[in-house]
Amino acid sequence: MTLHDEILEQPAALARQLASARDALGALAVRLRAKPVESFVIAARGSSDHAAIYGQYVLGVRNQLSVGLATPSVVSLYGAHPRVARSLVIGISQSGASPDIVSVLASARRAGAPTLAITNDPASPLAEAAEHVIDLAAGPERAVAATKTYTTSLLAIARLSAALDADTATAASAAAELAALPAFASAALGVESQVEAIARELRAEAGAFDRCVIVGRGFEYATAREWALKLKELARVFADPYSAADFLHGPIALVQPGIPVLVLAPAGAAADGQRELLHDLAARRVATVVVSDDAETRALGRWSIELPPGLPEWLRPVVSILPAQLFAYHATIARGLDPDAPRYLAKVTRTL
Amino acid sequence: MTLHDEILEQPAALARQLASARDALGALAVRLRAKPVESFVIAARGSSDHAAIYGQYVLGVRNQLSVGLATPSVVSLYGAHPRVARSLVIGISQSGASPDIVSVLASARRAGAPTLAITNDPASPLAEAAEHVIDLAAGPERAVAATKTYTTSLLAIARLSAALDADTATAASAAAELAALPAFASAALGVESQVEAIARELRAEAGAFDRCVIVGRGFEYATAREWALKLKELARVFADPYSAADFLHGPIALVQPGIPVLVLAPAGAAADGQRELLHDLAARRVATVVVSDDAETRALGRWSIELPPGLPEWLRPVVSILPAQLFAYHATIARGLDPDAPRYLAKVTRTL
Repeated sequence: MTLHDEILEQPAALARQLASARDALGALAVRLRAKPVESFVIAARGSSDHAAIYGQYVLGVRNQLSVGLATPSVVSLYGAHPRVARSLVIGISQSGASPDIVSVLASARRAGAPTLAITNDPASPLAEAAEHVIDLAAGPERAVAATKTYTTSLLAIARLSAALDADTATAASAAAELAALPAFASAALGVESQVEAIARELRAEAGAFDRCVIVGRGFEYATAREWALKLKELARVFADPYSAADFLHGPIALVQPGIPVLVLAPAGAAADGQRELLHDLAARRVATVVVSDDAETRALGRWSIELPPGLPEWLRPVVSILPAQLFAYHATIARGLDPDAPRYLAKVTRTL
Repeated sequence: MTLHDEILEQPAALARQLASARDALGALAVRLRAKPVESFVIAARGSSDHAAIYGQYVLGVRNQLSVGLATPSVVSLYGAHPRVARSLVIGISQSGASPDIVSVLASARRAGAPTLAITNDPASPLAEAAEHVIDLAAGPERAVAATKTYTTSLLAIARLSAALDADTATAASAAAELAALPAFASAALGVESQVEAIARELRAEAGAFDRCVIVGRGFEYATAREWALKLKELARVFADPYSAADFLHGPIALVQPGIPVLVLAPAGAAADGQRELLHDLAARRVATVVVSDDAETRALGRWSIELPPGLPEWLRPVVSILPAQLFAYHATIARGLDPDAPRYLAKVTRTL
């Protein structure tokens, strides 16, 4: 299996995730209803950390939950044990083998907190350390760059959000929206030839294409972060991801002709601000690539990538990353590099 | 007042912060002892967000507090109100005028949560919205790039951590360590001529010096983030900040001769890992700049910047950013840009 195979396998992987861990999710929802927690804390690194950011938005917006991201080295380097007994502590790791993430869950469990592992290996140390386990069921991921374990992690978190819905009508509509995801994912992957052409043209027009900025906001901030990581690890592009709000706080100074800006601007709460940014960037003659499900917004970019319309905002990050993965893959080839042999990287990073 | 004046003014600004808001800190500590909270939530953007990251470490390690960073757009864009009634909700903003940070505090206060504003303007909307206020007392900051409002924000958080010490001996030793900070800050600024030379040599050796990576870990992760922001907004360098743990999860693929890596490696819990990284980078013939209070560690870098020895780890980020600010200032000049006129930036960013 190559990286490209694994990107294309994602509709099937998402379908497997939808069928996985139903009992575990049900048991966790029952536990949280019987004994509610004050907040959620998520520990993760790399792509899994971007899934955690998605969790902050989806659980915050749909479930009114305050979700914090753990700083694992507070536990693993400094030996401190922040008080989390009244939080659900979640560890996300495809391998389940990162010692610092395991240490956060072990510390939380000793303190009496409910714990959840989201992992592609239900026999891993992380799964062992947690009381509840959601198996990603993504199938073996051989490529060094995470793709299907990222999207299935997002989906697992979306299903957790849905499992916590108290209202039956909300739960029923969420279930229908979740079931439609694999078909949307297939549709999103249909843009590959356009994406390949954009990567090639960008390489030709932006010279070395060794730097770019990526702007997302709200739900799509996680996508901006994950897209940047793929471009770094595969294509060796200095890709700098921002929420639109933070971008205006300084890094906008980086923008100039020759440094493209990739903008996630689908319909929704963040759309107006993103369109304003696109107008600004056009006035500064900056080359942009717009990812959107809205034709008028796409028309504001120098290049654009279509997202299938009709996706509910809370689930769109599961799909919007797919053309971004294809873009990173083709940018890697356009830059003369091998997407299946990224430099210096190992599949499992055993940070203490 | 220019940026350079404000960088050099920081020992005096820190002394003013130490004398400020004693009553407010005392009242907050009494409130939290009478009615303890489950966790802290901090809302901030830009440099203030890096102060919030420092807060995660110092309050986690010294006070066993679980500290989450709010995602303000959950409130401001999506109109959701995550449940934070049993948290202390802190907003950090030098101007106190960012509507999204104000909205997080207003929402929390309506929900009955204790709230704290850390701001340089005690008459600002943020201060109005909060029950408790710590005035940074940094004095007016005219330069667009934040310097003294950043270090005084760190110090305000450190003082909050100390105010929560229950043990009298711990509190007394913390007070002595806090009082020594302005002198350490003066000592740290003494390296300016060396830092200026490094910035010039790096520009000459690394060609355009348009990209770099910055690696910190633990307490110094906040410093890595803030250093990168200064290099972006002032020198227009694509400076990519990482915790050492996340760096190994992918972005290490960016490293190659010609792209310098700036490494924060002072003595402490993260030192061994940082020294290992420096050995690795040397083997890959990557140019490094090491910031450390340890002579043997400094010897591992192509260039090095000395931190004054003897600073306690929990307070070191207040000081370690000072040579980094000087470095960004001189890198800006070395790149032919004006540090007092960064491109496209306004002092107050009114993101909704």
